[in-house]
Amino acid sequence: MTTHLHVKTATASYDFVIGSGLFSEAGHRLPELGVQKDAHIFIVTDDTVNQLGYAEQIRQAVREAGYDCTLASVPPGDGSKSLEMAEELYLEMLDAGVRRSGVVIAVGGGVVGDLAGFVAATYQRGVRFIQAPTTLLAHDSSIGGKVGVNLKRGKNLVGAFHQPLAVWMDVDALKSLPKREWRGGMAEVIKHGMIGDKALFERLEKSPALDVPDSSQVETLIARAASVKIRIVEQDERESNLRMVLNLGHTVGHAVEQVSHYELNHGEAVAIGIRVETEIAHEKRLVTAEERRRIIRILERHGLPVKPPAFSLESIIETLNYDKKHTGKSWTFVLPNAIGGVKIVHDVTYEDVKRAWEIAQKET
Amino acid sequence: MTTHLHVKTATASYDFVIGSGLFSEAGHRLPELGVQKDAHIFIVTDDTVNQLGYAEQIRQAVREAGYDCTLASVPPGDGSKSLEMAEELYLEMLDAGVRRSGVVIAVGGGVVGDLAGFVAATYQRGVRFIQAPTTLLAHDSSIGGKVGVNLKRGKNLVGAFHQPLAVWMDVDALKSLPKREWRGGMAEVIKHGMIGDKALFERLEKSPALDVPDSSQVETLIARAASVKIRIVEQDERESNLRMVLNLGHTVGHAVEQVSHYELNHGEAVAIGIRVETEIAHEKRLVTAEERRRIIRILERHGLPVKPPAFSLESIIETLNYDKKHTGKSWTFVLPNAIGGVKIVHDVTYEDVKRAWEIAQKET
Repeated sequence: MTTHLHVKTATASYDFVIGSGLFSEAGHRLPELGVQKDAHIFIVTDDTVNQLGYAEQIRQAVREAGYDCTLASVPPGDGSKSLEMAEELYLEMLDAGVRRSGVVIAVGGGVVGDLAGFVAATYQRGVRFIQAPTTLLAHDSSIGGKVGVNLKRGKNLVGAFHQPLAVWMDVDALKSLPKREWRGGMAEVIKHGMIGDKALFERLEKSPALDVPDSSQVETLIARAASVKIRIVEQDERESNLRMVLNLGHTVGHAVEQVSHYELNHGEAVAIGIRVETEIAHEKRLVTAEERRRIIRILERHGLPVKPPAFSLESIIETLNYDKKHTGKSWTFVLPNAIGGVKIVHDVTYEDVKRAWEIAQKET
Repeated sequence: MTTHLHVKTATASYDFVIGSGLFSEAGHRLPELGVQKDAHIFIVTDDTVNQLGYAEQIRQAVREAGYDCTLASVPPGDGSKSLEMAEELYLEMLDAGVRRSGVVIAVGGGVVGDLAGFVAATYQRGVRFIQAPTTLLAHDSSIGGKVGVNLKRGKNLVGAFHQPLAVWMDVDALKSLPKREWRGGMAEVIKHGMIGDKALFERLEKSPALDVPDSSQVETLIARAASVKIRIVEQDERESNLRMVLNLGHTVGHAVEQVSHYELNHGEAVAIGIRVETEIAHEKRLVTAEERRRIIRILERHGLPVKPPAFSLESIIETLNYDKKHTGKSWTFVLPNAIGGVKIVHDVTYEDVKRAWEIAQKET
């Protein structure tokens, strides 16, 4: 079975495809996307994913179909999302002879997708690009066209909006995902349930997906979570307003991730972010005591952390102040509003964050 | 007098404004462009232009109008169009507290416009930007949204399309332009005449603008040249086809500029490019002997070089092969077609370039 979710934004129109065996079909899929045989295909992956053979699988399929294809592999981890690594890739593309007709395929998780997408957005003022996510987390980052790299000062400070030609989510690739990675990805799935799919949330409450389920279940899970995101980015491609709701858990989450020096993975940091933001929402009576308890429990039942680590609150606040979501004297937060909804709150104060942080550290 | 030329592309709509005293009106112009008072204005200039006071003039006007404003100055010259310099500017913007509501103003020539525009296109996934060109050459580069930086391997290999909010061409700034810079800019004015304004070409044949004429004449000259470019970018924002005609003189010109290690300025290199490409056009009977003579003479009468320097042809060919305009086994060139028109020719061979290069080196 293959699920096609169509994404139509103001500037682009593409399919988010979920299924088994997609990567080995790459050679047939490219011509369907209008990629002609004289286009050079430039695959970007990381060393971990490369060893698992997914990038090679695509390369082989693409070559058999008659395309020139080059594969570049970067070290795994967020450290590769840098301008320096982007420059290395530009040079490899020049060496390979990639022209404006070329296509970049990102094979890996969010880091590879963001980096390769940024390179595609800026190489010779932009070439086409395809997302081939190999992690659950990347079901989220591969939709919506946000690409970029980090500066030492913070995450995603440099980037672009560059919509992919397609997203190929081959569920076979998820089978090799370490448990911790899977669970990190579930934080975004839960987030999508909280934002706009109450039934998905309730389903996960009943039977948590602690580890990779079988293919057809994965396909359904991803399709539902992805649909929430697609509905939102279709209405607001460039994050002017509505799209902000997707930041649930991320305002605090990004800060936690950064202050932990990425010891916590993105999903774990988001889980802590959701927890702290739920406490703010509870104080502001946007969620009931019962809803608060359900949110904490669903995260715990997916093996995700719900207590902030022993960082000083000040280090978090400092990072919040650099964060682009801070637009004035108070902060704008996206807070849970019951289950299956969110509310944008513009006047979250230092005191609000402090109280929520302390409650989250003490209670469960 | 102030001339407003309206530019309307598929994704943007803005004014190219030409006049005297524009920079000191910046404080009034920003609100008219919808820039609110909480937007941080980040001016990028280079040390040469900075010493002439233009950036300061804008900063003062903007501050008097109640905006926060920071000025950053980079070393003059093409060397500043680098990823490293872009990174320095990102960090200065973070230090200054520029958020997504901020506006970058590029005050200077093409290098500053391309660099600052690239930084604006990618800082926090894109902030608004205004071009305030201070050179004649930049009448060309400030229209059309092409921004970018160089890699060591070649010019403009990294970039984006990012349309400005406005272009402010203050003709007062041109008065301080060194003669050599003015004449370099005239190469692009002549190019625009050759592409689409025969009357402009004939006017310059009659009375060459060897040095900066008085303000009203400059205004007319720039308005006519800019109009040719605007008409073309309006129809083809992303250089898919039609916009290619603007590359007249640039295929050979870029290679010459690069092989000269930028000893030749851009306009001088373009003049040599126009000359060599005119020889190709003459061999292909696209221009008559008389038209060829007129093109060579108009360049000479503007103090521009028409003979290729003593580089080896091979160094030029090598650079052409890296150039993004080379899309297959032969090269695609834009060639003059009579006066006031061009033709895109897809099958220009090595032999064609060699013959033209040799003729241009020998004859005048």
